Amino acid sequence: MAVTSQPAVPVADPEGRIALQRWLDGPHVEARDLVRDWLSDPDHAPRPDLEMAEHRELVLAWTKDLAASGGTSMGFPLKYGGAGDTAGFVSAFETLAMGDLSLLVKVGVQFGLWGGAVLQLGTERHHEAYLRDTMSVALPGCFAMTETGHGSNVQQLETTAVYDEATDEWVVTTPHEAARKEWIGNAACHGRIAAVFAQLSTKGEEHGVHAFVVPLRDEQGETLPGIRIEDLGAKLGLDGVDNGLIWFDEVRIPRENLLDRYAQVDRTGTYSSEIENPNKRFFTMLGTLIQGRVSVCGAAINATKVAQVIAVRHAETRHQFGPPGEPEVAIMDYRTHQRRLLPDIAKTYALHAAQETMVAELDAIFSGPASDEDVERRRKLETVAAGMKAIGTEHATNTIQECREACGGAGYLRANRFAALKADTDVFTTFEGDNTVLLQQAAKNLLTNYASEVGDLDPVGLASFFVGQAWETITEKTAIREALSRLADSVRDEEADLLDRDTQLDLLCWRADHLLETAAKRLKGGADEGLNAFDVLNRCQDHVVEVGRAFVDHLALKAFSERVAGCEDEHLRPILEKLVDMYALSVIEAERGWFQEHGRLSSTRSKAVTKAVNQLCDELREHAALLTEAYGVPETAFGDAHRVSQPADR
Amino acid sequence: MAVTSQPAVPVADPEGRIALQRWLDGPHVEARDLVRDWLSDPDHAPRPDLEMAEHRELVLAWTKDLAASGGTSMGFPLKYGGAGDTAGFVSAFETLAMGDLSLLVKVGVQFGLWGGAVLQLGTERHHEAYLRDTMSVALPGCFAMTETGHGSNVQQLETTAVYDEATDEWVVTTPHEAARKEWIGNAACHGRIAAVFAQLSTKGEEHGVHAFVVPLRDEQGETLPGIRIEDLGAKLGLDGVDNGLIWFDEVRIPRENLLDRYAQVDRTGTYSSEIENPNKRFFTMLGTLIQGRVSVCGAAINATKVAQVIAVRHAETRHQFGPPGEPEVAIMDYRTHQRRLLPDIAKTYALHAAQETMVAELDAIFSGPASDEDVERRRKLETVAAGMKAIGTEHATNTIQECREACGGAGYLRANRFAALKADTDVFTTFEGDNTVLLQQAAKNLLTNYASEVGDLDPVGLASFFVGQAWETITEKTAIREALSRLADSVRDEEADLLDRDTQLDLLCWRADHLLETAAKRLKGGADEGLNAFDVLNRCQDHVVEVGRAFVDHLALKAFSERVAGCEDEHLRPILEKLVDMYALSVIEAERGWFQEHGRLSSTRSKAVTKAVNQLCDELREHAALLTEAYGVPETAFGDAHRVSQPADR
Repeated sequence: MAVTSQPAVPVADPEGRIALQRWLDGPHVEARDLVRDWLSDPDHAPRPDLEMAEHRELVLAWTKDLAASGGTSMGFPLKYGGAGDTAGFVSAFETLAMGDLSLLVKVGVQFGLWGGAVLQLGTERHHEAYLRDTMSVALPGCFAMTETGHGSNVQQLETTAVYDEATDEWVVTTPHEAARKEWIGNAACHGRIAAVFAQLSTKGEEHGVHAFVVPLRDEQGETLPGIRIEDLGAKLGLDGVDNGLIWFDEVRIPRENLLDRYAQVDRTGTYSSEIENPNKRFFTMLGTLIQGRVSVCGAAINATKVAQVIAVRHAETRHQFGPPGEPEVAIMDYRTHQRRLLPDIAKTYALHAAQETMVAELDAIFSGPASDEDVERRRKLETVAAGMKAIGTEHATNTIQECREACGGAGYLRANRFAALKADTDVFTTFEGDNTVLLQQAAKNLLTNYASEVGDLDPVGLASFFVGQAWETITEKTAIREALSRLADSVRDEEADLLDRDTQLDLLCWRADHLLETAAKRLKGGADEGLNAFDVLNRCQDHVVEVGRAFVDHLALKAFSERVAGCEDEHLRPILEKLVDMYALSVIEAERGWFQEHGRLSSTRSKAVTKAVNQLCDELREHAALLTEAYGVPETAFGDAHRVSQPADR
Repeated sequence: MAVTSQPAVPVADPEGRIALQRWLDGPHVEARDLVRDWLSDPDHAPRPDLEMAEHRELVLAWTKDLAASGGTSMGFPLKYGGAGDTAGFVSAFETLAMGDLSLLVKVGVQFGLWGGAVLQLGTERHHEAYLRDTMSVALPGCFAMTETGHGSNVQQLETTAVYDEATDEWVVTTPHEAARKEWIGNAACHGRIAAVFAQLSTKGEEHGVHAFVVPLRDEQGETLPGIRIEDLGAKLGLDGVDNGLIWFDEVRIPRENLLDRYAQVDRTGTYSSEIENPNKRFFTMLGTLIQGRVSVCGAAINATKVAQVIAVRHAETRHQFGPPGEPEVAIMDYRTHQRRLLPDIAKTYALHAAQETMVAELDAIFSGPASDEDVERRRKLETVAAGMKAIGTEHATNTIQECREACGGAGYLRANRFAALKADTDVFTTFEGDNTVLLQQAAKNLLTNYASEVGDLDPVGLASFFVGQAWETITEKTAIREALSRLADSVRDEEADLLDRDTQLDLLCWRADHLLETAAKRLKGGADEGLNAFDVLNRCQDHVVEVGRAFVDHLALKAFSERVAGCEDEHLRPILEKLVDMYALSVIEAERGWFQEHGRLSSTRSKAVTKAVNQLCDELREHAALLTEAYGVPETAFGDAHRVSQPADR
C-alpha cells in the first residue's frame, strides 16, 4: 500500500517520490511494507485519548496481532517458525517506530530483549522451552537487567543467584533496596517470566553477572512466591508500556534456568566456561545483545521522519508575511525555516544510510555461522552501534523538538502526534545505554583497537590501558601518519572545493582521527604526570566524548555518499548528491570552530561553508516535500494532522 | 518560609545559601516570598495525576485563592485595590513558574493579558467596569488575538468590527474559517468576556486592528448569541488551561466597548486618534502589552531553576563507576556531567540578572507617569523583551531537556516533574511571539535605531528601510568606529586575559556590533543589486537572527557582571565572579567558530577558551548545590523527587 498511497500534500513528482521511497527502503522493502500495511489500518493508529490502563491493554493486543501477522518473528530461527532474518526483523521494527511508540517498545521487550536473551544467551533446551510461546506472545517476558543502584555500570549489579547443591537450584535474591530491578518493561502487568541478570555464585565463589530465567507470574497472572512487583506508574511518555520494579526474596529456580551458552554449572556446582577471562566473558555475553541498541537507533531515525513530514507539510501550507501588496509566503520559503528543517532532513538520510550498513553487518554476524573473524567484527559493530545509538537518538530528540516549534501553536495540540513523539522518544537518549556513556564506550573501543586488545567497559580500564605498555604501539603508528598529513594539509587546504566529496570525507575523517590521536596522547600525558587512571580519564572526558561523535559523523557521511553514488536513477541522484553536500557541510559548519583551531579551515573558507549551506537551502527547498514524503510514513501516523498541515489557510 | 527551609540535600554552607538566595531575590523579595509561601502549601503542589477536566477546575480554584492572597493584584492601580507595582507583579508571576505551569498561564491570561488589555488599552470607563471583578476573578476574561490564519502577523488579522451608526454598535464577525480565534486561553470553559482584536471599520473606511470588549458567556456560563466556542482539547502540556476556538457571527456590542485609549470613534462613526500614522498607532497599542513577553521570559527562567535543582540533587547523590577498588563516584564529579549542568546554571544566573534589569525598566516606564522620553525607552524595552523572551525560553527548553537526560531513567517518571516541566514550557518558545520572529524583531529594532526612526513589525519594512535613504547615517557612524576597532584588535588580541571581565565584555559587544553592522551592509548590498526588499531580507535572515541573539548574549553578560560587582558578600562574590566567567566563556566557546572567522580569536586562544571552561567546571563543581539550592524553589515543586534525588543509593 504505502508506496502508492497519495500523500496529503501532493509532491510535484509522484513517480519520483515512489522511486525515492524504494531507494530508501533498500533490500528489506518487504519487511518495511508489511509493517506499513499493518500500521495503515485505522485500528492500529496511535490513540492520544487513552487512559494508561486501556493503553497498556491495547498495546498488548496489538503486539499479539502483529505477531500473528508475522512481522515480529522473522528474526527467530526457521526451526521455531521464524525466518532467520535478523536484518528483516530490525527493518520491520524500525518501521514500527512510525506508529505508536509504546507498541514499538513492547515489541522490543518481548521479541528483542526477552526473546533475544533466550536466543543468544540460552541453549537448545531454552529455545525449545520458550521460543514458540515467546513468538506467539503466549508467554510475555521481561528483561530484568537494570537495578535502581546500577544502570550504566552493569558489571556492578547486586542481585544474587547462589547455587544450592542440596536442591540443585539457584536462589535468586534482592539483597537490599538499591538492588531491586527497575524500569523493567512488561513487568507491571503482563510479564510471566524474565531473564534476570544476577551475580552468579557457586561453591562460595563469585563468577560475575549471568542471566537466569525466572518465572514471575502463573497463568492466571498471579505473582509467584518470593516475587514482589510494583508498578512504576505514569511516565513522561510510553504509557502503553507497563514498566515495573521487581524484588526477589530467595526465589528458587532449577539449575537449568541459567542461560548457559557461555558458562555452565554442573550438578556438583562446578562452574565452567570456554572463555576464561571473566571480563571477556561478561562482555561477550553483553555483546550478543547488541541488536537492541541497533534497533533503538533505527527506531529513533524513523520516529524523526514522522516529525519531519508533519513539519514540511505545515511549512508548505502555512503562509505568513510576504512582500507588500502580494500574497503571504509559505513559511518553507523563509531562509530561517529552511535552516531549521533541511540540514536535519539531510542528517536523517545520512543516518538512515549508516543504519542500513550497520544492520547488514549485524545480519552477517548473527544470521550466519560463527567464525573466528567474528570477534573482531563483533567488536567493530559494538563500536558503531554504541556511537550510532547515541547520535541517532540525540538527533531524534533535537529534530522532533525543532519540528514541533516549526509548526508553531498547531504543533502543540496533542492530536498532532508531536506530544507523543516528543514524550515517547525522550527516553531513547538514556535507555539501551546512556548516550554520554555510549559515546565514551565507542571512543574506548577505538582507542584500544590501536593495539587490538580487547578491553572492558569500565571507563577506568581505558585510562589504565594507556598507563600501561600499549602506548608505544600507538605512537609509532600515528606519529608518521600525522606528520605527513599535516605537511599535506598546509598545501591542499585552500585549494580544495568544499563541494568535492573527497574533500568533505577527508575533513570529517581527519577530525575523527585527530581527536582519537590527541585523546590517546592526553591519556598518556596524564599518566606520565603521575595522576591516577580515573582522574586522567575524567580530565579529558569531554574530549573522549567528541571522539565518539566525530567517528559517527564521518561514518554516516561515508555510508550516505556511497549509497548515493550507487543510485541509478538519473533524476534522483543529483538531488541526493546535494543532500549529501548538505549533510557534510552542515556538520563541518557546526564544527567550524574546531576546524579553524586545527588549521584545517581558514577563516575565509569557514565563512564559505556557511554560505554553501545557505546556497544548498535555496537549491533543496523545492525538494523538501519529495524528500520527506518519500519516507513512506503511513497517513495514520500523523494523528489529527490536518490541524497542523491544513489549518484553514484558505 | 522559603529562605529558612532546609533543602532535601543539605549544602555545605547553609548561611551562604540564605545569603545567596536573598541576593538573587533582589528588590522584590516580598513578592517572591509571598508566592513561595503559597506554593509551599501541599494543597497547591503540582498534581501529575489529574484528568484534564479536574485539572482545569483546580487551576481556576487556585487562581481565585491566589487572587485572594493578593499575589496577583499588585500590578493594578491603587484606586482599584492594587498596589501599582508592576515589578512586584512580574516578580510574583515569575516565581509562580516554580509550581504548576497551568496555573501560571491561567494567571497570565486573567491578570496579564485580559486585565492588562483593559488597563493599558482601555480608559477609565473600562477600568471602572471591569478591573475589580477581574482582580477577584469574579469575571474570568480572555485575550482573543491569535487567529488560525495569523499568529505572528498580527496586523493581518481578519476578524472584523464594523460600526453601525443606526444602533450605535459594533458588529463583530468572523468572516471565514481561517479568521476564527484560536488558542484562546480561558475560552473553552471559564471565560465570560474577552478583549477581541479585530479590524476596525467605520463609515466604510478601515483603520486597522483594535481591541474590543466582547462578552462571551452569561453568569450561568451559557454562551451568548452569535458566539460559538469549541474546546481545543488535550494539548502537549498545560492541560489545566482551557484553550478554545471562538467564532463571532455578527455579534453586536456597544460602541463604548472599543478599548479607546489610543483611538476613539464618536456617535457619528468618526474615527480619531492622537497618533496619526496607522502603523505607529498599531505598534504603540501592541507595545503596551509588552509585560506579557517580559513575564514569559521570567517564567521560563524560573521553570529552568526547578529542573536544575532536581538535576544537581541527583548528580550529588547518584554514584556510578569509579576508580578500581574504591567506592563509586558521584556523577557530579564527572567532567561530562559538569559540562552538561554548570554552564547552563551560569546562564540561568545571567538571564536572571538581565531579567531583573528588564523588569526594573518595565516598572519605570509603566508604573510612573507618561513622559516624552517614553517613546525611546519603550522602543528599547521592546527590543530587549523580544530578544530576552526568545533566549530565555530557548534556554528553558534546552536546559530542562538536558537536566531530564542527566537524571537518566529516574527523570522519566511522571511524578518527578520533568514530564510537566518539559511539556508545559515547550510552548513558551512559540507563544507570546515565535522566537525566530522575535529575534528578527529585536534585530530590526536595533537596525532602525541607527537612524532613530520608528519602524514597523513587518520584516519587509526592515529591508525597505535600508533600500531607502537612511543608509548614509549608518555607514557614517559605523565606518570610523570599525576601522579604529580593527586596528586595535590586531594588537590587543593575543595579550588580553580571557578571565578579564573587560575582555569578555569586549568580545561579546564586538560580536553584537559587528553582526549588526554587517547585516546592515548586506541589506544595503542586496538593495543595490536590485533585488526586492523581501528577497534581500530573506537572503540574510539567518544572519539577522544572529544579530538578535548576540545582542542578548552581551546584554546578559553586562547585567550579570554588574550585578555581581555590586555583591557585598565577601564570601559569595568570588564564587559569583567565577560564574560570570563561566557564562562569558561558555558563550564565547559556543561562538568560537565565528570569533576565529573574524580574527578575534586565534586558534591557540580559541583552544584556551575550552580549557578555561573546563577549569571553571573544576572550580565551580563544589558550589553546584549552593548555586541551585539558592534559587529557593519550594520543596513542593519537585513532585515525588526523592525517586530522582535519593534513589536508594545506600
